Amino acid sequence: MLPQRIDIREVGVREGAQFHKSAIPAQEKIRLIDLLSDCGFGAIEVASFVSPKALPQMADAEEVVSRIKMRPGTIYTAICLNRAGLARAKATGRLTIDGLVLLYSSDAFARKNVNRSVAELMDEIPNHIAMLESFGIKECVVSVSAAFGCNFSGDVAPQHVVDLIDRAMSIAAEAGGGTREIILGDTMGWATPRAVKHLVDLVQSRWPGIPIRLHLHDTHGLGIANAYAGMEMGVTLFDAAVGGLGGCPFSGSRGAAGNIVSEDLVHLCNELGVETGIDFEKLLDAACEAERIFKRELPGRNMHAGSLQSYRAAARETAGGIGLAEAGR
Amino acid sequence: MLPQRIDIREVGVREGAQFHKSAIPAQEKIRLIDLLSDCGFGAIEVASFVSPKALPQMADAEEVVSRIKMRPGTIYTAICLNRAGLARAKATGRLTIDGLVLLYSSDAFARKNVNRSVAELMDEIPNHIAMLESFGIKECVVSVSAAFGCNFSGDVAPQHVVDLIDRAMSIAAEAGGGTREIILGDTMGWATPRAVKHLVDLVQSRWPGIPIRLHLHDTHGLGIANAYAGMEMGVTLFDAAVGGLGGCPFSGSRGAAGNIVSEDLVHLCNELGVETGIDFEKLLDAACEAERIFKRELPGRNMHAGSLQSYRAAARETAGGIGLAEAGR
Repeated sequence: MLPQRIDIREVGVREGAQFHKSAIPAQEKIRLIDLLSDCGFGAIEVASFVSPKALPQMADAEEVVSRIKMRPGTIYTAICLNRAGLARAKATGRLTIDGLVLLYSSDAFARKNVNRSVAELMDEIPNHIAMLESFGIKECVVSVSAAFGCNFSGDVAPQHVVDLIDRAMSIAAEAGGGTREIILGDTMGWATPRAVKHLVDLVQSRWPGIPIRLHLHDTHGLGIANAYAGMEMGVTLFDAAVGGLGGCPFSGSRGAAGNIVSEDLVHLCNELGVETGIDFEKLLDAACEAERIFKRELPGRNMHAGSLQSYRAAARETAGGIGLAEAGR
Repeated sequence: MLPQRIDIREVGVREGAQFHKSAIPAQEKIRLIDLLSDCGFGAIEVASFVSPKALPQMADAEEVVSRIKMRPGTIYTAICLNRAGLARAKATGRLTIDGLVLLYSSDAFARKNVNRSVAELMDEIPNHIAMLESFGIKECVVSVSAAFGCNFSGDVAPQHVVDLIDRAMSIAAEAGGGTREIILGDTMGWATPRAVKHLVDLVQSRWPGIPIRLHLHDTHGLGIANAYAGMEMGVTLFDAAVGGLGGCPFSGSRGAAGNIVSEDLVHLCNELGVETGIDFEKLLDAACEAERIFKRELPGRNMHAGSLQSYRAAARETAGGIGLAEAGR
């Protein structure tokens, strides 16, 4: 029932640096990204190209991108919200940028985040598609933030999310933009396993050919359970953050938690036989390094507990035959 | 598919104080237990009656038990590993003590924890049953620690756990002790949702009339996902710890995490319509108090993020009709 393989996009550096109160030195970001590259991620989100006035923590985006070691087989990406950001990102010559069409489940959150109503965002889609095309980006990734609930507007009906995506995709298609991926973002951690299954089912049924990516936050402690529910529905694309870095500074949650923890998700996959392509021990080391760089205890579990593989290896070495027999192996 | 109601036994004070490096003052334990009583838990584990030499943190067990306010409808319980402990617990006149038959999935862990092999523990069961009966305890609770994997011996075959329980129940029955509950303990956090479903299924099939309790630790980050898997199998009895207090000091895990977080489990249940009988807002307050008492950041999520009900209420107050309509309500 589970997919044979999932692909995790590592977003911890971008999410973490964006949420951090002070700026993380470029050198440290680069070191962490290089460690993550070495873990074997297929995609790493390394920066946001937004106004340095709005987010001084990201003012070094160009420097970071220019100095990371690019691993063959890894796509390096960044968040760009407008033409200026896209131009900066494209100018680096090193990034693969998604043609993001960003939607919000409520006017309240859209206004807080981008000072627009949802209707205004819809109206802007044709110009946005033209802008993307001017940068050679022909396919869209439609993303709905707070798709499972919103701190500002409360519960979100799954059908409302489907309707939003439907409207955006139609407008984009009329403007010549196809949709190659749908992102369901649980920005504020409202999802439950049941809600994930329900919304994923609706979206899969409506657009069977378009892959779904889950972007889940662990704000209310259900992040990994929700990811597992997604996997049970066949979802293969996940965002996750090393160590559990990050959080959404504009989500109005007192204790806004970061994305689901990359290494805890990889642990789950390892134990279930779902491939990730990630070197788990290297990822644990990277998480410990992230903790040193960000100077706070990160919520990741396996980074503190160690891998089960290391316990298994130690058990094989130390346990006698009787002990192993007793353990039923 | 989910149960209509689950019963959570709050074990945070016992687990937390036992794991804490220094002794928590009795007065603080009492205050926290009283707060937890007020939340409406059906059962609270308040202490371990073990040798004060082995666990000085629990030397005040009698004082704590004698001074808590007992809420009608709440059972207060404690861990007793031998006759001396049981005598002390019974002497308080305020506790309901389980007739625990403690098993370990491996010799290695049994030796570390109680300096016995599993076979020796089996041999002791008849005397143990007689001892329990001398205290008026006629029914056993059979508990398997490290039932999903062991840091000392590695993986544990589910059938091995069933065989252990089978053997122990047979010996107990011959000695006149029936079994009224089976506890599956994921002491070191090795379980996955799939492993929980598999083992619970085996145990339910073998003993359909005996309720199962899951005692899950979050050491590797899958605790709540595992609890949800248990609920999907119809399990209704769970141990959990306020704020995520605790951990097993003898489990040999570098970063042994506490039990699953009580309030995060209640949050999951609230969102799924599964009753717990717990006052969630009071429980969040108790978790914050636990954080002050134990002087460390606890891993609970909802205690830091706030309840979704509080966000829902705020959204209803502040959002205009358009915002709510936009959110699809």
